[in-house]
Amino acid sequence: MEDCIFCKIINGQIPSNKVYEDEDLLAFEDVNPVAPTHVVIIPKKHIETLNDIQEEDAGVLASLLLRAQSIATEKEIAEDGYRIVLNCMPGAGQSVYHIHFHLLGGRIFHWPPG
Amino acid sequence: MEDCIFCKIINGQIPSNKVYEDEDLLAFEDVNPVAPTHVVIIPKKHIETLNDIQEEDAGVLASLLLRAQSIATEKEIAEDGYRIVLNCMPGAGQSVYHIHFHLLGGRIFHWPPG
Repeated sequence: MEDCIFCKIINGQIPSNKVYEDEDLLAFEDVNPVAPTHVVIIPKKHIETLNDIQEEDAGVLASLLLRAQSIATEKEIAEDGYRIVLNCMPGAGQSVYHIHFHLLGGRIFHWPPG
Repeated sequence: MEDCIFCKIINGQIPSNKVYEDEDLLAFEDVNPVAPTHVVIIPKKHIETLNDIQEEDAGVLASLLLRAQSIATEKEIAEDGYRIVLNCMPGAGQSVYHIHFHLLGGRIFHWPPG
C-alpha cells in the first residue's frame, strides 16, 4: 500500500532499527518509545486493523505474538515482565493503519493501560 | 489448577458474568472494569503466561484474538475502537497467572498504555 508508513518500512523506503525480520514478519524499534524496550511487530501483509483479520489470516496473529515472546527473551525482559498492546481504530489510539503489536518492557507498567 | 482463580471461574466455583464460552475459551466481564467495556478472554487450558506458550499451543492465541474481535463487534465498540492488552509477569502487572487478554472499549484510550 503506497501510502502506508509501515509498508514503506518493510520495503526500505523509510529506515528503521530492525529487531527481527523473516518472510512474513518485521519487528523494529518504535521511533517514539514509551518504555526502555518498545518494539513494533507487524506482518508484511498489509492488513489495516484487527477488524480486518479473517479466520484464514489468524495464524499471523499467533506468529506475531510468538515473535513478541522470543524478542522479549532476547531483550531480557521476559522474566521481569512485558506488556503487549494492540490498538484497533481511532478511539484506541491506532495511529498507523497496518496492524501491529506493541511490545513494551524494561519498566513497571501501571493500570489502567491508558 | 486448584488455586487458580480463572480455573475456578471456568469450572463454576467462582461466579462470573460470562460473555462467551465454547469448548476451548471463556470470556467474562472484568470484576474491576477500567473501561465501559472490559472483557477478559482466556483459554480453558491452564497456561500461566505468554512465556509458557509453545509453538504447538500458538493457535490458542489466534483464537483468543479472533474472539476479542467478534466480542468487540457484538459490544458495538469495533468501529470506535478497542484496545487489547496482555500482561506477562509482575512488572507488566499480570495479576492472575492464567494467560488472558483484556479487551477494553467504550472510551478514548491514552498513550502510553500504563
